[in-house]
Parts: sequence; C-alpha cells; structure tokens
Amino acid sequence: MQSLPGFRDFYPEECAFRDGIIAKWCEVARRYGFVRYDAPPLEPLELYTQKSGDEIVGQLYHFVDKGGRDVALRPEMTPSLTRMVGGRYRDYRKPMKWFSVPQVFRYERMQRGRLREHFQWNCDIIGEESLRGEVELLALLIDGLRVFGLGDEDVVVRLSDRIFWTDFLKERGVGEDRWYEFFQAIDKSEREGEEKTRKQLGVLADDVIKVLNEGAESARLDEVEAGLARRGMAQYVKRDFRIVRGLAYYTGVVFEVFDRKGEYRAIAGGGRYDDLFAKQGNEAVPVLGFGMGDVVLGEILKDRGWKPNDADITVDVFVFMVNEGEERWGDHAVRILRDAGIKTDLVFKPTKMAKQYELAEERGARWGLCLKGDKVEVKDLKSREVKQMADVEAVVAWVKSNLG
Amino acid sequence: MQSLPGFRDFYPEECAFRDGIIAKWCEVARRYGFVRYDAPPLEPLELYTQKSGDEIVGQLYHFVDKGGRDVALRPEMTPSLTRMVGGRYRDYRKPMKWFSVPQVFRYERMQRGRLREHFQWNCDIIGEESLRGEVELLALLIDGLRVFGLGDEDVVVRLSDRIFWTDFLKERGVGEDRWYEFFQAIDKSEREGEEKTRKQLGVLADDVIKVLNEGAESARLDEVEAGLARRGMAQYVKRDFRIVRGLAYYTGVVFEVFDRKGEYRAIAGGGRYDDLFAKQGNEAVPVLGFGMGDVVLGEILKDRGWKPNDADITVDVFVFMVNEGEERWGDHAVRILRDAGIKTDLVFKPTKMAKQYELAEERGARWGLCLKGDKVEVKDLKSREVKQMADVEAVVAWVKSNLG
Repeated sequence: MQSLPGFRDFYPEECAFRDGIIAKWCEVARRYGFVRYDAPPLEPLELYTQKSGDEIVGQLYHFVDKGGRDVALRPEMTPSLTRMVGGRYRDYRKPMKWFSVPQVFRYERMQRGRLREHFQWNCDIIGEESLRGEVELLALLIDGLRVFGLGDEDVVVRLSDRIFWTDFLKERGVGEDRWYEFFQAIDKSEREGEEKTRKQLGVLADDVIKVLNEGAESARLDEVEAGLARRGMAQYVKRDFRIVRGLAYYTGVVFEVFDRKGEYRAIAGGGRYDDLFAKQGNEAVPVLGFGMGDVVLGEILKDRGWKPNDADITVDVFVFMVNEGEERWGDHAVRILRDAGIKTDLVFKPTKMAKQYELAEERGARWGLCLKGDKVEVKDLKSREVKQMADVEAVVAWVKSNLG
Repeated sequence: MQSLPGFRDFYPEECAFRDGIIAKWCEVARRYGFVRYDAPPLEPLELYTQKSGDEIVGQLYHFVDKGGRDVALRPEMTPSLTRMVGGRYRDYRKPMKWFSVPQVFRYERMQRGRLREHFQWNCDIIGEESLRGEVELLALLIDGLRVFGLGDEDVVVRLSDRIFWTDFLKERGVGEDRWYEFFQAIDKSEREGEEKTRKQLGVLADDVIKVLNEGAESARLDEVEAGLARRGMAQYVKRDFRIVRGLAYYTGVVFEVFDRKGEYRAIAGGGRYDDLFAKQGNEAVPVLGFGMGDVVLGEILKDRGWKPNDADITVDVFVFMVNEGEERWGDHAVRILRDAGIKTDLVFKPTKMAKQYELAEERGARWGLCLKGDKVEVKDLKSREVKQMADVEAVVAWVKSNLG
C-alpha cells in the first residue's frame, strides 16, 4: 500500500531535511521577535469560502463530518489567523508579530514544485499601519533566505504596489467590479505573452504595458526600499509592477520571491491585506504577511547541496559490547551518559565488532565506548585515536568538554 | 466564527507550551539515538480498516476525495509506520529506532483529557526480538516523563505480559476466537467492578481474579524489570496484569503509564506487536513501541506549574526610539544585532517610553537599547542597571558574553 498521490512520506533522512528547514525558519522568526501560533488543520468550510468565494471549493479537501458540519483541510493559514486574532485583537499589544509553520492541503494537479500538501512558513505583522511594517516583514523574509545561504545573486524579491494599480484604475474610471479581471490579466501577463494580455486589457493596454516594461513612481516603494537599504538588503529587491498577487484581498505593497535564473516557481509571496478582517466581520485591522513553502525552497536547497544540521540526527557516543555478558555494563554506561544529556546509542547484545562499527557509523556517532578490563576505552571513530579512562563518569566529563 | 469542536487554537502562549512539550520529547528521543520520521496526516482509509477492522471507521474523519479515493485523517501513527517500514525494511540496519510527533484525529465524544485531535509522541524499535528492546523502550518512556520533572512518586508504568495471558488461555483450552472478548473483559475490569467482570469471565473468573489481585510469575517481566533496575528506573515500574491493551494486535510485554493518584486518564501506552507487519502483507518483523499524547500530559504539567523554556518565546534585546527621526538608527541597530544571531525586537517609530517599556516587557526582553548622543545606552530591564557603549557592535560583544 502506498501513501496518497501528492503526499509525502518523510523517511528519517527526508524528515531531517524538512525539520532542518523548519528549524531555520523558526530561528529567524524568533531573531525578529516573532512568536509562534498554530490552528487546526481541519476548519469549517465557510472559513475559506467567506474569504475566497465558492470557487476555492474546487481545490479543497472538504467533506461533511459525522456531526453534519461542512469542513475542509486548510489550504492556507491566513483565514485561521484572522479568525483567531479577530476574536482577541484587543488582548494583545500592537504590533503583533506572529509566525506559524502549518502543513496545508490543496487538491491540485501535481507538477514539479507542487504537491497536494506542503509545509508553509507564515509570518504576519498585525496592527501596524505604517510602511515600517513592510520593512520589518521584508527584512525577515530576506533573512529567511539568507539563513540557507541564498544570496542576492541567487534570489530576488520582486516588489510591487497594489495601490499604484488601484489609483491607476480609479484615474481611468474603471469600476471596481472589473478590478479582479484586471489584476488577473496582469498576474498572467508573464506566462501568456504581450498579445494576449493586450487583448484582455483593451483600451488600457498601452498604459499598462508601459508600466510593466518601464516601471513607475511609487513613494510607498521608495520608502520601503530605503528602509531595506538601511537593513543592508537593498540588493535583494527589484521593483516589478507585474507582481499583483492574483487574490483580490491585497491592499498595499505586494511581493514575490523567485530564484534569479527563473528556473523554479515562486519561493514565497505576500503583502498587505488590511481589508480582510473587516470582510470576516471583525473590526478593521492593518495586517501584512507572507508565506514560504518547503517544496520549491527544498528543491533549490537540494540542488545546491544544502544539508540540515547533523547534530539533530546523530548521536555523540556509541556503546559497544565486546564480550558475552556485557549487557549489564552497557546498561550502566548508557544510563550515566544519557543522564548527563549526552546522546548515546548502544547495541542490544554482544555481536561481531564489524557489525557494531557499521551501526555506530550509520548513527553518526563521534566516539565509541567499550569495556577494557576494569577500565573504559574511548575511541574517536574518525581519527581512530584511543584513550583509556577510569570509568564512565570520566568519559562524561571528557565528552562534554569536547562537544562544540 | 469558531474552530471545530474538539480542535484547539494555539495562541502564542499555548503554542509555546505545546512546542515546549514537543521539544522535550525530541530531545529525549535523540538522547536515546532515535531518529525522527513523519507520514501524511491523510491516508487511504484501507490502511486503518486493514489493521483494526471496519469498526474503527465509526471513529474516523473519513471521506471520498476528488479522485474517488476513500481517505481518512490518521487516528494513530502505527499503520503509517508499518506501511513505510514494510516497503523498505531491508534498507536499514537493525534495530531501527524511530520516533515521530504526529497530530492524530478521532471523531469521539469529548471529555476531560480527550479532544478530537492531539499530538502524539510515537517511539518504536523495529527489528529487535529480545527483551533488551523492551528495556530500551521503557527507559526512553520513563526518561520522557522525568524530563518534565515527573518522578516515581508522580507516575507509574504499569507493566504486563500478553503472553502470560495467551498461555493462560491455551492451557485452559479457550479458543482464539474468544480471546478478544477475554481481553476486553480484563481491560474493562477496573472500571466495571469485580461482579460484572466475573460474569463476563464465566468459569475462568476465579483464576483470573486471583492473578489480577495477587499477580503471577513471568520470566519475561523479571528480565525487563532487571534491565530497568540497571538503568536506575525500577521504582517507576509496577507489575499489573490488568493491563492488556484492548487492541488485538499486541503480542508480548504491554504497559500503560498513569499518575500515581489515578486522577487522570492514561498518559501513555504501548507494547510489542510482532504480528502487525505480517498482517499488512509484509514479512514478519519484530516491533515494539509506545504513544504519549500532549493532552493528558499537558493537563498534569499545567496543574504542576510546569513552564516551557522561556528562551524560545522571548527576545534578548529591545531597541527603543526616544526622539523623532531615530528610525534610521533603529534599523541600523537591529540589523547589527540580528546579523549576530541576537534575538531583537524594536518599536516601529518613536512613541511614549512607557508604552515601549510595556512592549519590551511583554516580549520578555532582557536588555533595552537606546541612542544617547553618539553613544549607545544598554539597560538591564530587570536590575535597571545602565551601561554606555561606543556602538552597537560593542553591545553585540557584551550581550553575547552575557547570554547563558
């Protein structure tokens, strides 16, 4: 029997890779003073249709539960976040800086970089109106790439401004009922080519294409870029008005992250969405955030040979048993070592030494321990250097002083 | 709008508590040389009915997906584990020591200590036939309690032996078709009282009740207990033949963990289940494991005032802005501090100092930083002690030498 199509099994080596990514995400978020939250992976279906309309249902894992409730596996985290914050907005000092690493689910056609589940780093700043929020959030996003060794020669944050475009539409008297269609056309312009985009844009085509190709003034983007320059990150950002984020709810600065060579799908995306709380029936709350998935990022990191921290998946010491009847000593040794917080593995009974060495190597052990008369022998499994010590307690002291 | 009944929102303080538990679980598992794996939260429904029969369907969140597949949210991790290992058993050196922390789901009547989802620490040793496996697994389980400060005066591992009982039944000529019913009667004997249990047991009642009350010989349990004594853990274990684990698939030593006072539901449970792989159509593989949930454990820890590690939810430094126009300096300061790996938060613009102090306190900052002429002032936010330093780089060095 197999797992479902589009769902991943994480064998230890793959789990370590995934956990290594998540650990870095958490580390960077905490470095920026973000605190972690979580929400259920199963939510009322209405939470998603309320935000995104009924069309989203076609992409959801949804069903009726045994209590007759319409429920869905979360396709994204934002609706759960706004639900949670909406109910308790007044309890927290603003700005709130929250992050989460949910697994999210969509029933989609599978392609490279797109499965039916992924883990998504979600970071949001809630309760900050000024563009200082954008600077902080984008700095976090960029550090969330730098922490994996991705430099400005590898990745780029394409930065845009929805208000520029909504002003553009208002000046030209385009009714709000046609904005969604307009943003869809721009969103797809890169894939579909100029001719098709021109057709969709009609009389607006010339003006729009000019902006897409030549850029435009935006005091908001000037301010954000200046802030990022002060954080030493200007070189990661490129103004690009083609980025509008298809979803209708963005209200300000928006952005997407790509690899510079354009070989992969978007690595991350986000922006400001000040209207969503009000749309959910709560008081209006300024909010901005981004999501970064583990699938596209993971592909890039794999191609670059990135490795998670070995210390998370290896032991420090491996206890060997050379002669019959050493189980008693083995139990004693692992007890003393583990009680001291030292990661320790052991064979369960005396067996061929070659087999024990293989196991110790697979576990990534740095030192091997065995009983030698009434002494303890410690072997450095790389250098093969051997030391004799009086007892396991002496080994503990020695290992602790030699662990990074 | 609310989350679904039986599902938890994790606001930051609750998420820190949950993550604190999970971090301890991972730490202990790694100390024992276990490696982490994971599997999809959504699996083919058949994976569960194959193991547990159709009766389990009544407790599952299950549905038909858009591809016409019968699928279910995982109610437990073991079927996914055996599916994964079954396919690649020969690829790994034995014994395999694997752990996971899945969120699992059951549509059940909600009670204290029982929701419709929980996080479950799953640890399994695969490929070890001898009782040394039991010693190692139970030692891990006990250290998984000790790591939260739970001593042998707080918790007890009730240890039992399914082989004792199956031998007992064979000796008395009870056919295998009646074993399930027999184990159910013993499983429920504590709750239902002696009279009802006697009725269910019929002619076996006298012999069984004697064992339940007075215990019995078991060379297997002797060996496990001796091993645990050598690990310094004998005092955590109590032999108790009432523990049989209702599920039909256990084949050897079984156990459950309870608080000594009996105020809560079981904290953990497990045992050996050597037949499950074969039942799933794989080659026979010796395997034993346990599961520990976060809900009952969390209740006990909350009642005892246990707290997660503060360092995971607080920042080290908070950057204040006293005068108008200090945003530029603030951006500079957080950049230098964060680039050095120091967890740093800041206000987004100059505001009332009282408000800034409140925010810094809420974030748990240890030091406050502000610009003072061309110098930097560092304030210890607890002792209120103040130091002047030449620049932010000097602060980095000082903070690093003062962080535990």
